Amino acid sequence: MSLETPRTHYTSQVDIEQIGDDKVTVCGWVHEVRDLGGICFVVVRDREGRAQITLVKKKIDKEIFDAARKLVRESIVAVTGTAKPEGKAPNGYEIIPESIVVLNEAESPLPMDTTGKVDAELDTRLDSRFMDLRRERTTAIFKIRHEVLRAVRDFLTKDGFIETCSPKVVATATEGGTSLFPITYFDREAFLNQSPQLFKQILMSGGLDKVFEIGPIFRAEEHDTRRHLNEATSIDIEASFLDHFDVMEILENMVAYVYEQVIENEAASLKALDIELSVPKTPFMKVPYSQAIDIVNAESEETVEWGGDLGTVAEHTIGEHVFKETGESHYFITDWPTEIKPFYAMPYENNPLISKSFDMMHRTMELSSGAQRIHLHDMLKARIESQGLNSDGFDFYLRAFKYGMPPHSGWGIGCERLVMTMLGVENIRDTVLFPRDRKRLSP
Amino acid sequence: MSLETPRTHYTSQVDIEQIGDDKVTVCGWVHEVRDLGGICFVVVRDREGRAQITLVKKKIDKEIFDAARKLVRESIVAVTGTAKPEGKAPNGYEIIPESIVVLNEAESPLPMDTTGKVDAELDTRLDSRFMDLRRERTTAIFKIRHEVLRAVRDFLTKDGFIETCSPKVVATATEGGTSLFPITYFDREAFLNQSPQLFKQILMSGGLDKVFEIGPIFRAEEHDTRRHLNEATSIDIEASFLDHFDVMEILENMVAYVYEQVIENEAASLKALDIELSVPKTPFMKVPYSQAIDIVNAESEETVEWGGDLGTVAEHTIGEHVFKETGESHYFITDWPTEIKPFYAMPYENNPLISKSFDMMHRTMELSSGAQRIHLHDMLKARIESQGLNSDGFDFYLRAFKYGMPPHSGWGIGCERLVMTMLGVENIRDTVLFPRDRKRLSP
Repeated sequence: MSLETPRTHYTSQVDIEQIGDDKVTVCGWVHEVRDLGGICFVVVRDREGRAQITLVKKKIDKEIFDAARKLVRESIVAVTGTAKPEGKAPNGYEIIPESIVVLNEAESPLPMDTTGKVDAELDTRLDSRFMDLRRERTTAIFKIRHEVLRAVRDFLTKDGFIETCSPKVVATATEGGTSLFPITYFDREAFLNQSPQLFKQILMSGGLDKVFEIGPIFRAEEHDTRRHLNEATSIDIEASFLDHFDVMEILENMVAYVYEQVIENEAASLKALDIELSVPKTPFMKVPYSQAIDIVNAESEETVEWGGDLGTVAEHTIGEHVFKETGESHYFITDWPTEIKPFYAMPYENNPLISKSFDMMHRTMELSSGAQRIHLHDMLKARIESQGLNSDGFDFYLRAFKYGMPPHSGWGIGCERLVMTMLGVENIRDTVLFPRDRKRLSP
Repeated sequence: MSLETPRTHYTSQVDIEQIGDDKVTVCGWVHEVRDLGGICFVVVRDREGRAQITLVKKKIDKEIFDAARKLVRESIVAVTGTAKPEGKAPNGYEIIPESIVVLNEAESPLPMDTTGKVDAELDTRLDSRFMDLRRERTTAIFKIRHEVLRAVRDFLTKDGFIETCSPKVVATATEGGTSLFPITYFDREAFLNQSPQLFKQILMSGGLDKVFEIGPIFRAEEHDTRRHLNEATSIDIEASFLDHFDVMEILENMVAYVYEQVIENEAASLKALDIELSVPKTPFMKVPYSQAIDIVNAESEETVEWGGDLGTVAEHTIGEHVFKETGESHYFITDWPTEIKPFYAMPYENNPLISKSFDMMHRTMELSSGAQRIHLHDMLKARIESQGLNSDGFDFYLRAFKYGMPPHSGWGIGCERLVMTMLGVENIRDTVLFPRDRKRLSP
């Protein structure tokens, strides 16, 4: 019922002892053809590895031998034959072929090198992502990304969180920002949602208690940096009857779990990337904002006054300070000035100038923001208005606070930045299959 | 470090024998207050169930008793006290309170009834989703939706699929349809992606071998029916070196697994919905298209000529036919005329008028479409053009077929329809927290 020559094994699955004389079929790309005259080696590559096909001129059908020599690199082949032990070949075996079927011949020259011998520019690689993915290094990143998201879901589900889904097409700005992409929604104007924030809060009023969402967010920000995207994947949680300390604990434990799982389940990918990962130690250090600016003012050229935001230099200075003190890359900056956090952050009862908010940082960049939220309707409405926003546009949101909204807290963490900092990837675009930025809309 | 009165248990978790005289704190909504003069019962509701708080006037502090009597329905409370066995109360216990803290008082009257005694219109429920979710029935649907997606990911991951992510903002129509929402992307026009189709195929050329994606799709179709949405969640797979029969097998096994897991892990939710689910028997029946139209022509008022599409009546007739024959709701319609399937469906070599395509049907509606895809560049380009599309717009896609594209197959299945048919939900909007349709953009 299958393709004419169905695959029996990935190249990494061929186990000589188990198979014996049974025929195997491997399918994949022609990675290399080495024609030495009397002997010809063809290396076939699939997602899991490589297999050496060995053709000795004297011992093999002339037609197959001649065809093998002429194989075009990166063509698709299905090779059927017998596997024999061969210590020098990948995975310790070679295949003596009985047939090599070309399923789809590649054109040449290829649009980019895939052997890893020539380093292509990022833009070239993104333009030809279908070629770039044939480099072991690139695929390793996306296997790890899969495992990161799997581990996140696993951790949150076990902790009683329900996966939910907020709309991506919305009528109003969710956080009052101006960075929105407008959509023509039939005869109306709508926007791409920049965050699930308001919707996950509404679900707290609905009683879902603990929810998470992993999905796309859209930000029409013009910056063109190595750590911003206009379309990104956000991992969000919201939880009722918990405060900011509780959700910080969930966050640090989740990050540690994700690292653990990647180490356990993606050893080969880590090896391909030449990375030795270690699990961050929990709890992460907590640096209150006021102490953070003291560090910046003492240890960098910059001066930050109380109430000011922290830029790249400031973040870097604090990150180095924490790293020197703890040997760890992850930490929290807590208790931010209320005025520089979004309207939904809960101020402390005894000092409303600071809020029950936090950022979770990696030594190199911000990873996550969170807070206990305001659950009281009148306070929330006043905060929206004090930020110069029209509360009418937030009616669909504010209503949920009138009829039984529990205290709640939550955070969002960027999936790409989590992967990027874990793997030391230089450019965020390397962690997205088809990145979208100011200039890039294709492929 | 937590809220002043941290929750110790969900209402369903209080185990009298284990707890003994230890204090418990339950947090939730005031579901009901029954004031009988000398005794007052307060029912507190949380995501997992209900707890009865019992206050006997003579035995309790007057202040607490008076406050309890005056509790406003749907307010948020934290109740601390001692749990005692009580056969007539939910979960077999009652709490004798020591304190009842009102964390957020609800306004009245409430915007809709949440007891389930009064049946609200769908629109009213969607307008006030935060109230609707307080009905056990509504929450049960979304707990099951979570479990469906968890089971799908689990099944596919175990089968070697990697979760990937395609862009939602695209430069061109993915399938040449006209039903696209335009976006202003900085100074350019772009569109919301209607399907991950072209991108998941590109990943086959990249060698990811087996991928899946679960994410939003956007269709600017104007129909206003009970089974269409303008923003929906699609579950997509694509797999190399497999044909349409192989991916049909994956699909039917996945559907059966999802039913199994829901039965195993969401018994309480199924009970709340009063549903007895049974696992569909695999393999699903395969009805070739030509036989399907014979059934329609013989058993309904409608006449379908070879080459025509199947409408609602036709689908219904075939569904009933299969159900009578097999007792099963799920089946495939296979081998569709090439012309009425998208350009990427692979025609049979021995009869190019029909294609290696299929729809997976539920007795009541279509659930999924799939096919072996064309992996040959020139054939694909010709098919795009023969459908009247400009192949220049598909350059980013066609390039991936030139340099080593393996044979591949895949399908997409609508998450909402999967949940809808499983639970017998009448309107697809009941399976989405915040549905988007022609008229609805809020909340």
